[in-house]
Amino acid sequence: MAKETALIVGAGPGLGAALARRFAAGGLIPVIASRTEAKVKDIAAGIDGARAFACDGTDEEAVTALVGRVEGEIGPIRVAVHNASGRYRSPIAELPAEEYRKAWEASALGGFLLGREAARVMLPRKQGTILFTGATASVKSFAQSAAFAGGKFALRALAQSMARELHPQGIHVAHVVIDGGIGVDEGGARLEPDAIAEAYWQLHCQDRSAWSQEIELRPWVEKF
Amino acid sequence: MAKETALIVGAGPGLGAALARRFAAGGLIPVIASRTEAKVKDIAAGIDGARAFACDGTDEEAVTALVGRVEGEIGPIRVAVHNASGRYRSPIAELPAEEYRKAWEASALGGFLLGREAARVMLPRKQGTILFTGATASVKSFAQSAAFAGGKFALRALAQSMARELHPQGIHVAHVVIDGGIGVDEGGARLEPDAIAEAYWQLHCQDRSAWSQEIELRPWVEKF
Amino acid sequence: MAKETALIVGAGPGLGAALARRFAAGGLIPVIASRTEAKVKDIAAGIDGARAFACDGTDEEAVTALVGRVEGEIGPIRVAVHNASGRYRSPIAELPAEEYRKAWEASALGGFLLGREAARVMLPRKQGTILFTGATASVKSFAQSAAFAGGKFALRALAQSMARELHPQGIHVAHVVIDGGIGVDEGGARLEPDAIAEAYWQLHCQDRSAWSQEIELRPWVEKF
Amino acid sequence: MAKETALIVGAGPGLGAALARRFAAGGLIPVIASRTEAKVKDIAAGIDGARAFACDGTDEEAVTALVGRVEGEIGPIRVAVHNASGRYRSPIAELPAEEYRKAWEASALGGFLLGREAARVMLPRKQGTILFTGATASVKSFAQSAAFAGGKFALRALAQSMARELHPQGIHVAHVVIDGGIGVDEGGARLEPDAIAEAYWQLHCQDRSAWSQEIELRPWVEKF
Repeated sequence: MAKETALIVGAGPGLGAALARRFAAGGLIPVIASRTEAKVKDIAAGIDGARAFACDGTDEEAVTALVGRVEGEIGPIRVAVHNASGRYRSPIAELPAEEYRKAWEASALGGFLLGREAARVMLPRKQGTILFTGATASVKSFAQSAAFAGGKFALRALAQSMARELHPQGIHVAHVVIDGGIGVDEGGARLEPDAIAEAYWQLHCQDRSAWSQEIELRPWVEKF
Repeated sequence: MAKETALIVGAGPGLGAALARRFAAGGLIPVIASRTEAKVKDIAAGIDGARAFACDGTDEEAVTALVGRVEGEIGPIRVAVHNASGRYRSPIAELPAEEYRKAWEASALGGFLLGREAARVMLPRKQGTILFTGATASVKSFAQSAAFAGGKFALRALAQSMARELHPQGIHVAHVVIDGGIGVDEGGARLEPDAIAEAYWQLHCQDRSAWSQEIELRPWVEKF
Repeated sequence: MAKETALIVGAGPGLGAALARRFAAGGLIPVIASRTEAKVKDIAAGIDGARAFACDGTDEEAVTALVGRVEGEIGPIRVAVHNASGRYRSPIAELPAEEYRKAWEASALGGFLLGREAARVMLPRKQGTILFTGATASVKSFAQSAAFAGGKFALRALAQSMARELHPQGIHVAHVVIDGGIGVDEGGARLEPDAIAEAYWQLHCQDRSAWSQEIELRPWVEKF
Repeated sequence: MAKETALIVGAGPGLGAALARRFAAGGLIPVIASRTEAKVKDIAAGIDGARAFACDGTDEEAVTALVGRVEGEIGPIRVAVHNASGRYRSPIAELPAEEYRKAWEASALGGFLLGREAARVMLPRKQGTILFTGATASVKSFAQSAAFAGGKFALRALAQSMARELHPQGIHVAHVVIDGGIGVDEGGARLEPDAIAEAYWQLHCQDRSAWSQEIELRPWVEKF
């Protein structure tokens, strides 16, 4: 039997790499993808068995092809993680429509494309885990943050809708609100990538009788 | 002094017409716009002093031109209402990316374009009211409703962000969650357009010391 | 036919008096009640036709007697407003159980007693409005605010539950989140009692096809 | 060094026992307490090293004494779990004030007493985990459920307030929304006690750089 994979789209050296390591430790083959091939190749090079692909997560054909290649050449996708965002900070009166659109594409359209393709391959198998990375802006939309929050609110809607449809079909869909900055910090004032990755892994491991659809993660010293 | 206007984008024979009537009764010139010229011309014909324009609310140039014409030819925009939506119901695995995008464009991109253009003309005057029509799907994302809810969640993010930025500059931004079907009904089981319009008018009339940023409206017999 | 009444429990010189004035202007007889007789007598003295009663809103017998007297001696209660709170600020480790209990009694038990008694007299008439005054702490529970927020969260639960049960029976139940300090202020930085009272009146006037169950009110310059 | 303890108040044969087993497996001494001594003795008898106490969780002196005995005779409390509720279903007009109060006492007052006593012993040690068991009614207040939801909303307020105060002092406070019936079920249609207990354990194990303050757990087939 082919070994199963964990596909992570929007993978940088912080959280993306930590997720790849954690899912690898859990016995899945991590497959990481992002726009810049060199970036993901570098990350994959440091993780035993990891695979890397260049992929624009907002390009429908590219995402479809990626999922097809992973399923066909590497192994069935057991876990899919969408981990990309688009940020653009601006007073509303100066916010270009193009930036408003791009922020939505990075968070929501990208989440939709990966989520839909993952659902398509997981539905016949009646199992799988689909995880979406949210932010403080997924639940609170700050001044000058209409573009970023617009994409993140929409992504949260996607996760909720998919959970309501797919949970009874055996596919676990969860949304993680990352409430704080990500980084390595002596004092734990930022969310350590490995600590976030552990939470994603635990979501994947939950018994289907007690699934979380949404969790929030925040540093102990973070105001909220 | 030029009479002020109420610009309503996404105006149909139900709520759009009721809003135009209510704002006209309040002393503003109602200007209604939607994609189909014949539709808005018909509505305007029934309301004393109302003006109508064909406008694709998701087209940046068209919205900019509309706001420019209203300001230049009719009167300063005192109230702007975004009242358009895009719905598409589908299991996630069968949802075309194009429909997912179009639903976002109708609700969120359209709301952004009108909201931004309205903010641009209102900011120097330090007053004005911007209202966004939401739905049950603005706060709860049902199965098979990822496209509609995605647009509506994003619109809610826009309204929140704009309120946080613009309230202290004198511009009132509110989001109305319409929780139920709209229509005329003996028993009040659907939201009467005139009753909704009254709530919009009351939002406009609120004293700035006690502004609502979000209200919900639902028929007395509606489950929630 | 007897003139109808608006019963306001927890009435001080600010919001309580403003509510009494607004409901009086709307044609109802305002009846105001609070623990201290002198206080409500003073307020009533300034409002044409207003009546005042001393009543401990957390005392079941007292509230039952109050509602009985108003219905029997003055007129049918068309509107009931619960406007009392209990605040106690303390680090959790130093919070006396007695203060935790008293804060709940003032907000939630008092709201329950008035709400239940009002429901009892309104149900046979299939109409009436019951309004509860909430606070920022109704939806966000700050550090050192467990007692106040505990009472206010519970009051919000009461309003929601009552709305779900009573709306289909013709009784409108709404919860108002007052997000800011109340007071008269040149610049509108605090919620003017009259502006709040206007919002309560508008809730009462809503058509049953478009009822709000919860609204929030906040000064234009308030951070949120 | 004395072995640390996990104190579980409101422990029945389902979730209470599962929590005791899970924390025992994690190396803590489980101490279970509930009103009925025989019940907790029975549960403890089946778990190696477990201790049982009769305690009315809504009685301040009893809770203070319990925490004192556990700390003095068994070992420092590393984890405290409040797991008791009061339910009473009734139309609002028929809801006895006594039942409304008792439901609040079981959920909120009990949670407060255990939470405060746990905070008192944990604060000097700058570490510990305090977990509160919530329900669907913690976030949605159904018709005829004002008493149960009142207590559960208030408990949620307590957990939020304590988290905001205590997280920066090293104490992790989390609230778990159990959204569904608890029980053992072939098909996973009810939340398995062991699956819930695993989630509590994982909360306890979270790195302080990525703490959850609230999670929800629900069966895969549960409507939400």
